[in-house]
Amino acid sequence: MYIPTLNDMLAARERISPFVHRTPVLTSRILNELSGAELFFKCENLQKAGAFKARGASNAVFGLSEEQARRGVATHSSGNHGTCLSYAAGRRGIPCTVVMPRTAPQAKKDAVKGYGGTVVECEPSTTSREAVFAEVVAKTGAEFVHPYNDHRVIAGQATCSAELIEQVENLDAVVAPIGGGGMVSGTCLTLSSLAPHLKIYAAEPEQADDAYRSFKAGHIISDDAPDTVADGLKVPLKDLTWHFVRNFVTDIHTASEHEIVDAMKLIWKRLKIVMEPSSAVPLATILKNREIFAGKRVGVIITGGNVDVDKLPWN
Amino acid sequence: MYIPTLNDMLAARERISPFVHRTPVLTSRILNELSGAELFFKCENLQKAGAFKARGASNAVFGLSEEQARRGVATHSSGNHGTCLSYAAGRRGIPCTVVMPRTAPQAKKDAVKGYGGTVVECEPSTTSREAVFAEVVAKTGAEFVHPYNDHRVIAGQATCSAELIEQVENLDAVVAPIGGGGMVSGTCLTLSSLAPHLKIYAAEPEQADDAYRSFKAGHIISDDAPDTVADGLKVPLKDLTWHFVRNFVTDIHTASEHEIVDAMKLIWKRLKIVMEPSSAVPLATILKNREIFAGKRVGVIITGGNVDVDKLPWN
Repeated sequence: MYIPTLNDMLAARERISPFVHRTPVLTSRILNELSGAELFFKCENLQKAGAFKARGASNAVFGLSEEQARRGVATHSSGNHGTCLSYAAGRRGIPCTVVMPRTAPQAKKDAVKGYGGTVVECEPSTTSREAVFAEVVAKTGAEFVHPYNDHRVIAGQATCSAELIEQVENLDAVVAPIGGGGMVSGTCLTLSSLAPHLKIYAAEPEQADDAYRSFKAGHIISDDAPDTVADGLKVPLKDLTWHFVRNFVTDIHTASEHEIVDAMKLIWKRLKIVMEPSSAVPLATILKNREIFAGKRVGVIITGGNVDVDKLPWN
Repeated sequence: MYIPTLNDMLAARERISPFVHRTPVLTSRILNELSGAELFFKCENLQKAGAFKARGASNAVFGLSEEQARRGVATHSSGNHGTCLSYAAGRRGIPCTVVMPRTAPQAKKDAVKGYGGTVVECEPSTTSREAVFAEVVAKTGAEFVHPYNDHRVIAGQATCSAELIEQVENLDAVVAPIGGGGMVSGTCLTLSSLAPHLKIYAAEPEQADDAYRSFKAGHIISDDAPDTVADGLKVPLKDLTWHFVRNFVTDIHTASEHEIVDAMKLIWKRLKIVMEPSSAVPLATILKNREIFAGKRVGVIITGGNVDVDKLPWN
């Protein structure tokens, strides 16, 4: 298992800079008053393809040799990673195949196709997904880019907090949502080197709290089919992300479905941005752990904005 | 009638800089493809208090003498100007009274109060509004700050396009929504001096097209109670804004209700920002006048983000 380093982040930053945005940081006086903290929202919902995953995907795609690149990339993801890998492959002009359950929302399939990728459907089971994916790779020779348990992907995500600490001075802490742990691992990679005094908190839905339980137990625990409105956060930790979480995360806090939706609505109303339920989990945990964050300068990662505006969780 | 000048804009810019954001400019490859143009969205929905009107209101409030300021400010507005004037007055720590029809949405009244202003209710008629407003001014001696027909307000709004032309080089045109004409007048003020080769287009709802008809007729025409989803754009031009519109606007384009809502949804989905129907009118007119904008670099003013997320026009 290769553990990515600060140099990998720095190389990623240079490699992906033509293909990703340096996203803005937004603030709200009213959210500061509500939390008692100074909150700095790093808006990766405004990132290319609508999610921070454009960073990791671009780093993986643009790091391939010409030879590898010709055979393209492949992944299995019904979420933002599939869309972002398709985006990055499209920018390099190479093939991208995304294996998705046939039951995935049409909008997700259209997003992959919209950036030029190919969707191959499988049945909605792990067995089918693995079989179909193996077939794709055997046929195309495509390079597998895992959504998060991949050192190239983590080095790419790590560029986000490198920007954040340049954009906001004297932060005390950063809070990021945790699913598989790609963003949190990237945050750990960068901050443990460049700002080791910063506390790193992960935020997770109560109804998909496998990372929280893993962190408390000291070993990876996977949930069986968790269900939460924060649909980007259902996946489990893997060995590489577990390495970062175990070694560098200060604590993991959880929030209920109700708290997540309330926080999401607050952000829509106060920051005027469209973001996913997953991205609201950090604010939800900050508001319910006021004693930890009050008086502190806190970076909050808004991870993505790919939500169906026709089906909002409060309608 | 005093017509504000470039010096007034420069003074406003210095005066208000501690109280307003330099808002970001966002782009979308997909919106560029749809329009055939290069679009640069100036996001005043991310402005303090959620609208560009924080600029003009701050300029008016912070330009008052100590003597005037002690007596406070007052306006009549059930929209963003009331909220923004309350915001600016709150920052200076002076009283602000906003006269609003008792039928105005509770959220609008709460927004004014949230920034420390006082709401005084009138009946929903011009006669009642004027009577109640006269009473407020007689009692308090407050300085009236008109929502748009005020040289201080226009000089404040003018700071927006000064930022835009610094943020985006070589623009060919700017498109802004037009209601009373405050933003368009500010845009004209700045661009006619600093970038006189830029074309300035105003965008208006078909169902509230009084500025369009005024522009074609050569004199101000007011509509009686226009009805449109773009509720920020129902008010008529006044002498000061008419001066700028008549002399510096290249053309005015209109869009139907359906086109406005479609454009709003496109912006929510593609730019991941929460903005008002009024702010979608420019994109709607750009998409239906492709021959004018294709191949051009176009600044688009997203004027505000104060929308009720519980009542979206497509739900």
